[in-house]
Amino acid sequence: MAVRAAVAGASGYAGGELLRLLLAHPEVEIGALTGNSNAGQRLGALQPHLLPLAARVLQETTPEVLAGHDVVFLALPHGQSAAVAEQLGPDVLVVDMGADFRLTDAAAWERFYGSPHAGTWPYGLPELPGARAALEGSKRIAVPGCYPTAVSLALFPAYAAGLAGPEAVIVAASGTSGAGKAPKPHLLGSEVMGSMSPYGVGGGHRHTPEITQNLSAAAGEPVTVSFTPTLAPMPRGILATCSAKAADGVTAESLRAVYEKAFADEPFVHLLPEGQWPATASVHGSNAVQVQVAYDADAGRIIVISAIDNLTKGTAGGAVQSMNIALGLDETTGLTTIGVAP
Amino acid sequence: MAVRAAVAGASGYAGGELLRLLLAHPEVEIGALTGNSNAGQRLGALQPHLLPLAARVLQETTPEVLAGHDVVFLALPHGQSAAVAEQLGPDVLVVDMGADFRLTDAAAWERFYGSPHAGTWPYGLPELPGARAALEGSKRIAVPGCYPTAVSLALFPAYAAGLAGPEAVIVAASGTSGAGKAPKPHLLGSEVMGSMSPYGVGGGHRHTPEITQNLSAAAGEPVTVSFTPTLAPMPRGILATCSAKAADGVTAESLRAVYEKAFADEPFVHLLPEGQWPATASVHGSNAVQVQVAYDADAGRIIVISAIDNLTKGTAGGAVQSMNIALGLDETTGLTTIGVAP
Amino acid sequence: MAVRAAVAGASGYAGGELLRLLLAHPEVEIGALTGNSNAGQRLGALQPHLLPLAARVLQETTPEVLAGHDVVFLALPHGQSAAVAEQLGPDVLVVDMGADFRLTDAAAWERFYGSPHAGTWPYGLPELPGARAALEGSKRIAVPGCYPTAVSLALFPAYAAGLAGPEAVIVAASGTSGAGKAPKPHLLGSEVMGSMSPYGVGGGHRHTPEITQNLSAAAGEPVTVSFTPTLAPMPRGILATCSAKAADGVTAESLRAVYEKAFADEPFVHLLPEGQWPATASVHGSNAVQVQVAYDADAGRIIVISAIDNLTKGTAGGAVQSMNIALGLDETTGLTTIGVAP
Amino acid sequence: MAVRAAVAGASGYAGGELLRLLLAHPEVEIGALTGNSNAGQRLGALQPHLLPLAARVLQETTPEVLAGHDVVFLALPHGQSAAVAEQLGPDVLVVDMGADFRLTDAAAWERFYGSPHAGTWPYGLPELPGARAALEGSKRIAVPGCYPTAVSLALFPAYAAGLAGPEAVIVAASGTSGAGKAPKPHLLGSEVMGSMSPYGVGGGHRHTPEITQNLSAAAGEPVTVSFTPTLAPMPRGILATCSAKAADGVTAESLRAVYEKAFADEPFVHLLPEGQWPATASVHGSNAVQVQVAYDADAGRIIVISAIDNLTKGTAGGAVQSMNIALGLDETTGLTTIGVAP
Repeated sequence: MAVRAAVAGASGYAGGELLRLLLAHPEVEIGALTGNSNAGQRLGALQPHLLPLAARVLQETTPEVLAGHDVVFLALPHGQSAAVAEQLGPDVLVVDMGADFRLTDAAAWERFYGSPHAGTWPYGLPELPGARAALEGSKRIAVPGCYPTAVSLALFPAYAAGLAGPEAVIVAASGTSGAGKAPKPHLLGSEVMGSMSPYGVGGGHRHTPEITQNLSAAAGEPVTVSFTPTLAPMPRGILATCSAKAADGVTAESLRAVYEKAFADEPFVHLLPEGQWPATASVHGSNAVQVQVAYDADAGRIIVISAIDNLTKGTAGGAVQSMNIALGLDETTGLTTIGVAP
Repeated sequence: MAVRAAVAGASGYAGGELLRLLLAHPEVEIGALTGNSNAGQRLGALQPHLLPLAARVLQETTPEVLAGHDVVFLALPHGQSAAVAEQLGPDVLVVDMGADFRLTDAAAWERFYGSPHAGTWPYGLPELPGARAALEGSKRIAVPGCYPTAVSLALFPAYAAGLAGPEAVIVAASGTSGAGKAPKPHLLGSEVMGSMSPYGVGGGHRHTPEITQNLSAAAGEPVTVSFTPTLAPMPRGILATCSAKAADGVTAESLRAVYEKAFADEPFVHLLPEGQWPATASVHGSNAVQVQVAYDADAGRIIVISAIDNLTKGTAGGAVQSMNIALGLDETTGLTTIGVAP
Repeated sequence: MAVRAAVAGASGYAGGELLRLLLAHPEVEIGALTGNSNAGQRLGALQPHLLPLAARVLQETTPEVLAGHDVVFLALPHGQSAAVAEQLGPDVLVVDMGADFRLTDAAAWERFYGSPHAGTWPYGLPELPGARAALEGSKRIAVPGCYPTAVSLALFPAYAAGLAGPEAVIVAASGTSGAGKAPKPHLLGSEVMGSMSPYGVGGGHRHTPEITQNLSAAAGEPVTVSFTPTLAPMPRGILATCSAKAADGVTAESLRAVYEKAFADEPFVHLLPEGQWPATASVHGSNAVQVQVAYDADAGRIIVISAIDNLTKGTAGGAVQSMNIALGLDETTGLTTIGVAP
Repeated sequence: MAVRAAVAGASGYAGGELLRLLLAHPEVEIGALTGNSNAGQRLGALQPHLLPLAARVLQETTPEVLAGHDVVFLALPHGQSAAVAEQLGPDVLVVDMGADFRLTDAAAWERFYGSPHAGTWPYGLPELPGARAALEGSKRIAVPGCYPTAVSLALFPAYAAGLAGPEAVIVAASGTSGAGKAPKPHLLGSEVMGSMSPYGVGGGHRHTPEITQNLSAAAGEPVTVSFTPTLAPMPRGILATCSAKAADGVTAESLRAVYEKAFADEPFVHLLPEGQWPATASVHGSNAVQVQVAYDADAGRIIVISAIDNLTKGTAGGAVQSMNIALGLDETTGLTTIGVAP
């Protein structure tokens, strides 16, 4: 018996990637597809890479259209998910790919998003301690942000094991799809090709409180986060370079041992062999995470670097993985660890 | 009962893409993997995107290593396939991803490759007239070149229907993976990013006789081909812009009708709706072919443009598609028409 | 005594490139800078690469603002130049970087642009036969389109020498800056990186009649043009692959001799040594044109390939070159043949 | 009277960029050009963007060839400069673009380069405190590494003013030209396009001790450096994201004031207006440095981000700037602050 899934916001990059994955998911049947400004258009014109859905026409995002599905994925601008979820009722699995329900701290939400806090849903990063249990059987999932996915997976083992000091410094490079499909001058190909540039510097990026929340939970104490995102000249991928002071007594061997243990049973997170470093191309289109660690004795710091596909593990793949858990399916169903490279 | 497949030449781009596809093929079990200069290395170091095979170690390309498989794929430098195939015996399906057995004209082979002609095998472009019948049950398959795949699919319907004059003019842009993984200065990222450049101009490219062979066969008379390949700043993809004089009486409608009919039942070749043009990104990592046609009344020419992924439909996907036919499997097994975009 | 120059439309790519060149021009003093929707903004925010002009503020495009200059460059949407030029009076050198005054055939203008024809000004492609004489002392210059620059320079010698048949087939790849700075979804970096796609196929591109005009003039008889532009994943550059049937008796040697003679005294157009092919990276930011020729005996065609920077020789550099001629300056003043590579 | 300059190592990226700048330098006449493995080749085949030098032929790097010049630039593999410089004698200005004479600490040299220390020459980063005085009249110049240029300019004002704690954390992204022109598999266009990856993680990069040296000198006390370089999918440019704990009492205003003062009279280093962030595209091909600062009160850190062109200010432009000072020319002669964008 197939799981019937609707996607609200099917014309954007997150929605497109989700549909790409759902098309390959053996248990899912794709139901209603909606898009606001694009309602009435053929999906083939908006997502020309999704050939099997080319003839589908986008509908308006209304309760009637979204009714009658087992799962509804929301890829909507922030602030809209709560109302839609309420209309869908408590028995439908609602997977919010937006930010609305990620934060536990209402004050942090209001400071960074400037609107009332809608609440907190089980957090869709299964690899975090305790996350799987919260997702099992849940009817609500808050899919993490792309940067928090890359950064939290890189650093939580160090914090959980007490290897890292309470001040994390993170510089991450993202492909341009992370900025969405709405056309803006600085996202033009002419502007981004051949250019690296930062944005949201100095703590201003909205993913900062989410990263802080995850690392603090892993550490069991407050962690401060210096997070600098940069825009890289590539369509997909995040490379997160994360570091913190090493706790007393940390060695390269103890650091590596902690990470080997942390990811030993994880289907999607791979600690690379020594000497090999993550590359975003290697996880292009896959739900895999590549991680490598280093201990810099001169600087007294641990450095952990992760690579993900921002649209797959960072958004739509993470959503499917969490949906699988919530529905009691095998967590890896419909997902791959094989990248499309070169 | 799984089909056991070996891959000779698993460290290059063609071999890597083939393994990516075979990993997703429900009927195939991956057997021996060989590589000459890279024998003894972990595949994870050479193809870091193929995580499920990371621990596999490349072996030497010897008859002993390749023995005991149902299918052997050869991704070898040209000139080597005949000897390997002979050693494997007549009962093993040998799929040559190199050029050795593509041409029917020994003189053309010798002129373009400068070595004795090894022979001709059934040609692995199933969409061409008569090709499927030749592939069914065959134990030998010559996988087409990437450019001939893109160009032949674009133009054969026009030639078969008598709509195109006998002089085809083709300009194609290819991603850099088409030039292989051997490091050469002009293929460095520093050189190719931001640059378009031609090569093999004036008929010198080795794919020219293969294109000529296919179009002439479709036309039932000799077609001359002016073929100019260009190197584009992208890793994958071919965009082929193909044109010829329109035969008397051709109209935009008659042209379109011929193509609609030609591809109506093809699982991988898609004539786009009017007004939409192929883009290589849309077929990234997929076995799909996007085609669009135009009739330029002022110039009296028909223009047909196709987009493929040079590594998928243009090489490894075409190989798997033809293998499926040869083995009696559904032709689409293990292959997708969904691209990874953006 | 400096030439005082105003630029109307200083916030776009053509205007920015023009300012980059004028800043290096020893005889020019940069006067008023205007931009419509961006009036009031600092140029540093719009063109952050032009540091010496960072503090300049864009003004409205009005006759008052543009008054009092020796030269006024117009980088405006088509249809607006005639009115502005009239207001400026006959003694000011007006250099129109738009399309309004390029075509001699009013019917062709109306067919392709859908508005009344404004007239014809001396055509700013000095290398064409007779063009320099028309530009000397002129107070009006129509700067050619970027594609017509690349294509006309590639093919006019063959047509002028009677080497090429009357049906030219042209496929050109352009960097994305040719599509301008107005944000549109298909020009997003996420869309263009990794993708080649055609547009304006089948004769629909507005540069087609301009190319036809130039080649027909060189041939002294009507030439028909099949022109297919494609969008390449790079910010700048045009690679034009141009071919035509070879006239009877053409040889590789006679073809090369014609091009050697045609460009022998040209400061910006370089016939490359045999065996070397144009690359857009080599002319990045320069006013140089790289050209190479081939005779394909099998196909009976001549192939000429040119590379330019669409913003420099294709737009702003061509404008400055023509301005130099009109003002009686050395044609190469302020221009370079040195590219920025890699 | 022109300065006659020779370039040893003219076939690589550093040598090519140097020639590009020297061609535009009004006081320099380009003399001998040498290259080891490429001796005997036309420069036009190796550096096709340098049209005015296309006919020049590379010579062997011998004392005889390099004799008779006022300035000799060395773009050689490390370890070779000392012997060449000795042969040239004390009256020739020798500008070493390699690493041999950058470090003052012989032990650091030996640890990172594994060979005996050749000595220390005046350091060609004029913006550092005291650097100009040491360069004036000098006959020997050690050109800084590209990363140390970007990082030292970003952080030295904070350290000199006592605003930054003694542990700097730096993550920098570089275009691929920084890795040179020798073809290696991981530098192929197919590998780098669409990919971000780190290297030399954990303190292993050879630029680490040079950065440490510069920041410690500015601070007047030892600074430890955590430096992570990453390879970005672009040919040129470095974006350096640098941070350190803020000293007590630092505010956004005091931080900005220090940087305004530090760069107020610098011709090439530009503190951007508040709200605008550096982008490597803006300094493409220019000697300019874009810098922006932020104070993150939550994290208690200062963040300074700089963008340079690794080949221009990061290598060849810095060399010319220092040469100008050594020769008593205006420091900016032949150099520009105008980038080639988009």
